[in-house]
Amino acid sequence: MEKIESRDNAKIKEYVKIASSRKRREESGKFVLEGLKLLEEAERSGVPIERVFVTESCLAARPELAGKPGITLISEAVEGKISQSASPQGVYALCKKLDKPENLGKIDSNGSYIALWDLQDPGNVGTVIRCADAMGLSGVILSENCCDLYSLKTLRAAMGSLFRVPVFTVEMEQFLLGTPLTSYAAVVTPDALPATQVPYRGAVAVIGNEGRGLSPEQAAACSAKITIPMRGNAESLNAAMAAAILMWEMARAAL
Amino acid sequence: MEKIESRDNAKIKEYVKIASSRKRREESGKFVLEGLKLLEEAERSGVPIERVFVTESCLAARPELAGKPGITLISEAVEGKISQSASPQGVYALCKKLDKPENLGKIDSNGSYIALWDLQDPGNVGTVIRCADAMGLSGVILSENCCDLYSLKTLRAAMGSLFRVPVFTVEMEQFLLGTPLTSYAAVVTPDALPATQVPYRGAVAVIGNEGRGLSPEQAAACSAKITIPMRGNAESLNAAMAAAILMWEMARAAL
Repeated sequence: MEKIESRDNAKIKEYVKIASSRKRREESGKFVLEGLKLLEEAERSGVPIERVFVTESCLAARPELAGKPGITLISEAVEGKISQSASPQGVYALCKKLDKPENLGKIDSNGSYIALWDLQDPGNVGTVIRCADAMGLSGVILSENCCDLYSLKTLRAAMGSLFRVPVFTVEMEQFLLGTPLTSYAAVVTPDALPATQVPYRGAVAVIGNEGRGLSPEQAAACSAKITIPMRGNAESLNAAMAAAILMWEMARAAL
Repeated sequence: MEKIESRDNAKIKEYVKIASSRKRREESGKFVLEGLKLLEEAERSGVPIERVFVTESCLAARPELAGKPGITLISEAVEGKISQSASPQGVYALCKKLDKPENLGKIDSNGSYIALWDLQDPGNVGTVIRCADAMGLSGVILSENCCDLYSLKTLRAAMGSLFRVPVFTVEMEQFLLGTPLTSYAAVVTPDALPATQVPYRGAVAVIGNEGRGLSPEQAAACSAKITIPMRGNAESLNAAMAAAILMWEMARAAL
């Protein structure tokens, strides 16, 4: 088995470039992941694994890793260069992005979707995808200006759900104007319908940016405005929390 | 107005110690915050402000800051030492903790509460407190091993709600065994009741640690087990997302 001891090895340099650059991920169609659990989730979902890097101590604990595609040993110094974790797990993989069903023709006009318009926090985007998976939603629709789906932070927060849930990246305003789905802008204005009183079959709930929410122009691109009735003093909810409640309302309506 | 130019000034050293150490915050009963919005929220809720540090450029833009308690100018070098933000906002305050109603006698036996058992992520704890505020819950109950309520990360995620929502810190198992509230362990096991089918008046929903959830022993300390019905493939929800959905169910039941 090949062993890489140099941090300047070309394969390590390629890994680091893809790990650190969204542009490089988009150009190459590749991404990286860390940890056995994410690797197993990726494999189970048919993600093509190009190369797996493993430390000697990790391989000793998990000898079955020897059969992974392009398995390559790395020294601890190399691990120190490539790991993005406070507590490195010893396993790293270079993967090819799945051909996700980004063709909008695959939108189910009777389905239930959540749309994220310019969310910037990878933890929020990842956790929404995980929740969409748990709630059995038809898919997640991201605006082009959302943070990168394939950063390690997003992948970690999504915990494997990213490989399972249909995710569509769109120019959001055009999408909303053209889709057969009823689109609900999630806002906090008093003219909005309560989120408990709208039908969610053939619908998409649209969540705005963490700091700004949806602008009036963005809300106007939707079919209607909805709101989560609040009784307390906070002016609004965190974007991911609002998304969780709306996804749950969608699932709840179908219980 | 006093101006501090030295990073070694005793007041700056005190600020940094309190900002960086949970132990120091607990011993002194003080905490720090950054930014005008959080400062205003703290003042509005009656938090005693001991000292406000401001940069000259910030004071020029906001001359009304001159009237704040213990207002002190700081140089940019000093700001560089005390700021915990990527984009510093020029205003920093040393505050005294509110005497929060931690006396368990103040628990409302008809109220609705959320309890967090050993949550470690300050963003999760803060966003749950913000959501509890929005949903009009009676309070938040934290186990002693949760992350510090008064770290800047928690304060930021709570966005002022921390100053408004009653928060109780308890030895959780003892609390659950002694409380008059009906306690619901949030779990993903099939023997749990659907979260839509239990009464939430006089109740507390209990959320477990981010990585482990609630152990069987922890769940056994509660009156009953509840679960959020899931239709998809994800095995579980992020702790804060699960808390959001249960808090919403509590508010929804009272709509």
